[in-house]
Amino acid sequence: MKEFFNVETIEGVLAHAPSFMPVGTETVPLAECLGRVLAGDIYSDVDIPDFNRSTMDGFAVKASSTFGASEANPAYLNVRGQIRMGVRPDLAIGPGEAARIATGGMLPDGADSVIMVEHTDTLDDATIEAYRSVAPGQHVIEKGEDIRHTRPALTRSTRIRPQEAGLLAACGCTEIDVFRRPRVGIISTGDEVVPVDRVPGQGQIRDINTQTLSGQVLAAGGTPMVFGIVRDNRNDLMDKCRRALERTDMVMISGGSSVGARDFTVEVLDALPDTAILVHGISISPGKPTILARSGGKAFWGLPGHAVSAMVVFAVVVRPFLDRLCGLSQTVRQFPIQAVLSRNLASAQGRVDYVRVRLVAADGHIMAEPILGKSGLINTMVKADGLIAIGMNTEGLEKGTTVEVIPL
Amino acid sequence: MKEFFNVETIEGVLAHAPSFMPVGTETVPLAECLGRVLAGDIYSDVDIPDFNRSTMDGFAVKASSTFGASEANPAYLNVRGQIRMGVRPDLAIGPGEAARIATGGMLPDGADSVIMVEHTDTLDDATIEAYRSVAPGQHVIEKGEDIRHTRPALTRSTRIRPQEAGLLAACGCTEIDVFRRPRVGIISTGDEVVPVDRVPGQGQIRDINTQTLSGQVLAAGGTPMVFGIVRDNRNDLMDKCRRALERTDMVMISGGSSVGARDFTVEVLDALPDTAILVHGISISPGKPTILARSGGKAFWGLPGHAVSAMVVFAVVVRPFLDRLCGLSQTVRQFPIQAVLSRNLASAQGRVDYVRVRLVAADGHIMAEPILGKSGLINTMVKADGLIAIGMNTEGLEKGTTVEVIPL
Repeated sequence: MKEFFNVETIEGVLAHAPSFMPVGTETVPLAECLGRVLAGDIYSDVDIPDFNRSTMDGFAVKASSTFGASEANPAYLNVRGQIRMGVRPDLAIGPGEAARIATGGMLPDGADSVIMVEHTDTLDDATIEAYRSVAPGQHVIEKGEDIRHTRPALTRSTRIRPQEAGLLAACGCTEIDVFRRPRVGIISTGDEVVPVDRVPGQGQIRDINTQTLSGQVLAAGGTPMVFGIVRDNRNDLMDKCRRALERTDMVMISGGSSVGARDFTVEVLDALPDTAILVHGISISPGKPTILARSGGKAFWGLPGHAVSAMVVFAVVVRPFLDRLCGLSQTVRQFPIQAVLSRNLASAQGRVDYVRVRLVAADGHIMAEPILGKSGLINTMVKADGLIAIGMNTEGLEKGTTVEVIPL
Repeated sequence: MKEFFNVETIEGVLAHAPSFMPVGTETVPLAECLGRVLAGDIYSDVDIPDFNRSTMDGFAVKASSTFGASEANPAYLNVRGQIRMGVRPDLAIGPGEAARIATGGMLPDGADSVIMVEHTDTLDDATIEAYRSVAPGQHVIEKGEDIRHTRPALTRSTRIRPQEAGLLAACGCTEIDVFRRPRVGIISTGDEVVPVDRVPGQGQIRDINTQTLSGQVLAAGGTPMVFGIVRDNRNDLMDKCRRALERTDMVMISGGSSVGARDFTVEVLDALPDTAILVHGISISPGKPTILARSGGKAFWGLPGHAVSAMVVFAVVVRPFLDRLCGLSQTVRQFPIQAVLSRNLASAQGRVDYVRVRLVAADGHIMAEPILGKSGLINTMVKADGLIAIGMNTEGLEKGTTVEVIPL
């Protein structure tokens, strides 16, 4: 077996991410933009709102008409009429005057504020008493207060959540320029691996990694492209890798659990044109036997065969590269959950250990309970809510330590 | 304007959720199961793995053959051959014997453990030295250790993440019974509201809520069905509500920002057959003017018109009902992010205040910076990473308090 010749820290591996380029762009309808990443800045064609807008049901007034008003000493206001929704008011307000207005209504000329209906009493059709004073601008969203049409409403490289989609609607964007979803080729290897629809014979096991990695790619905003299982055979592997590199933006090969296969991957990479191995081994556990190469500008990953190891490597190492391909300008802001470790955890120095944890709510705080188990057991990931990292220079963590949990 | 006649606490509203029934089920291919909710327990057709499996590259041995082995006093083992991947070994191991085995390989009869290749030296084709002892079962995943075919591998009402999809693959499930995605009807109201593809005239504003609520429904695993904008007209509203209730599993109407529209919603609900208003007003801010009704077994929501209010009500109140329709057995375990409040926040007693916050990493902890702004400003939600709740009986929170952030 060839040794890993260049074991790299996580930071060292992630430093390669900016050297890969985002994928191209495409245009999608507004209704399909959720989760996509903006390919350009967004401007509104109008100010939002494009008029001074009431935020309450009440009366549009000049604030000065209410100054000094109180329960004991109400202001008497002359009601000029009712503001109709969705049209420009055909009346104007002077001192001592008011117009009925509903939430969302357009303030008439002369009015600068709204007094809530709860703070008034109707005396007759044409007169109200106001018990409170209002300040200029009170209960009003001013023209352009939400978004000004002269400034970007949203900027390139923003991931679209429901609220960004709402803002795009407000801006009148029916078609949105976004980065297309990066296509990620997924190859499984191993003479012992059989497809899901086969009953495994003695010594055989169904392909798990194609499914877990496809799921992780999808969840991260990419499009998985499944290239199936390759036998531990140099030529087949070469062929499959070539095709995957042609058709996708990034390739992940997992497994090569047998000694030969791991060597084959390196041999194939050595033989491919315009290809360089950047990383061969990462100082993490699980996940040490990971390879990163660049082939014709595309990232090519050799991931470990164990289901847990491959998922962990994807979550902590591959994901930032995929974010980069997705057009996100920097690593996605991911805020970890804080939890209290439920037991002591030993760890080897010189590598970062990722430990699967289950989160349990316990009297006012969240406990992280380590799930110990071999990295070949997919069911340990099913039990897990997240991962905690035990740093390079740490011999372990004590029970009661506050830890940061990367959600799974 | 009719007053809210039955202002209810959040807990009071959520207590209605279990009285709504999950939607029906359907069968989807494995490749499309991500995010779906299992409609039944899952069993594997075989034990996983179905044989004793090596987790290392090395030699399959009887552990007893290595007892007492050390650098100074290695055990000499007779190599019987190499285990081929994916087939049943054609050799057996006796005391003092070993067989080369790769990660994932099937242990031959007689072997109970694997010694790592790193802890051996090859003397000749047929002999190795072992420098360490191994325990029985070491570096082996035993038959059925991941999943036993006699016990459920996954249980009904589990949401499928990448790891559950991997386990389904291991179990041989190519078609999965899941709850179908609940269809959620979305109606916007307001004479001032115009569709996204129209340039708003004076006093008009584009429909934001259809987009934000559709996004929230999608993100929660539902299928939004857009019924467009209804003018503030009782008959149109009645018609649209009827159609939406016929075609969907839950209906959300937002807006009715004008006084009339809010009353119309109540009138329509009163007029619909088999319909009862359960909640009319919730003691939260923003979001107080929320209506929940049951119509023919379906939940019908009247949400506030302001974009922020409608989103907050969806996130904290509607979402648990949708989770229930999705087939999740209990409220989804959502672990909040803990952060430190960056400034004092005042709050009214007698209601729960939800405050938008931006999260900022600051020397070792996460700061939650309140985003103050009217609930009509969608751009405040774009700036926000999450919400914090200030409880009913709290007058406010002090700067430096640890708060729990509900991600947005």
